[in-house]
Amino acid sequence: MSRLDDLLANNAAYAAGFDAGNLARKPARRLAIVTCMDARLDPVAALGLRPGDAHVIRNAGAVITEAEIRALAVSQRVLGTRDVLVVVHTDCGMRGLDERELRRELEAETGVRPDWEDVPMRSPDDDARTAVERIRSSPFLDHEGAVHGLVYAVETGRLRLVA
Amino acid sequence: MSRLDDLLANNAAYAAGFDAGNLARKPARRLAIVTCMDARLDPVAALGLRPGDAHVIRNAGAVITEAEIRALAVSQRVLGTRDVLVVVHTDCGMRGLDERELRRELEAETGVRPDWEDVPMRSPDDDARTAVERIRSSPFLDHEGAVHGLVYAVETGRLRLVA
Repeated sequence: MSRLDDLLANNAAYAAGFDAGNLARKPARRLAIVTCMDARLDPVAALGLRPGDAHVIRNAGAVITEAEIRALAVSQRVLGTRDVLVVVHTDCGMRGLDERELRRELEAETGVRPDWEDVPMRSPDDDARTAVERIRSSPFLDHEGAVHGLVYAVETGRLRLVA
Repeated sequence: MSRLDDLLANNAAYAAGFDAGNLARKPARRLAIVTCMDARLDPVAALGLRPGDAHVIRNAGAVITEAEIRALAVSQRVLGTRDVLVVVHTDCGMRGLDERELRRELEAETGVRPDWEDVPMRSPDDDARTAVERIRSSPFLDHEGAVHGLVYAVETGRLRLVA
């Protein structure tokens, strides 16, 4: 990795100015966020969060599969969070991608069948609503807190509440 | 959610100062990071990344399951990343947690058996090495780039290379 040294140098500067404060394992805002891995989206900055405020779960497309339910169950039951925000975004590379075709390609190349779960994606608003519905209907999650879905515009940095 | 308005107000301030620049879907550093959802860890800040630099995948414990292989496969094949960094951290709430026991509890309460995948966790160094090995041995990922494992100390903000 040509730039690992570069990243470690960045981290040395970060650590030099680091203040651990009195951060605890349990998120101060009792909040878990699920969002996309997209490089243009920095959910901590976009929501004005401070260190220690919220769990951040990220995957390809901000989808809710069993893997995300696992993370949210741990977040709630072990680490005391209550509310969930799902943040999908505009211009997502997953939208328009046929994941079944990707899996077929991988199986043809490797002779091994990928057995991960995926969720078909449609529009940002629909995807946010689908994600919220999957969370609200999971038997493994507590449903005392609020669950909301937001769309982040990578063009403007603005969040819009849709569910 | 009592503080949703608060978060949306934070975002309005963020958007007011937002500069979309010429960010592209494909991460500029051709880098994907897998790390934990822990609220104390801000991987973008800790590595000195800029918007658009890297995909960020986060879950409970920075584990590599099929769900993370899915995200990495999309990251590489669809969005052109090459190198992977796994960042585990000290004082992780997943270490010492018996996930099998958690699943038994959930099944006893709900009558439904959680069918998500999990990975037993041991020490930060071992967990980083296990994650790197799972990535390096996946048939679904390209192996031209570098894969490294780092441990982040939540006490100091410092990263240490272990694999």
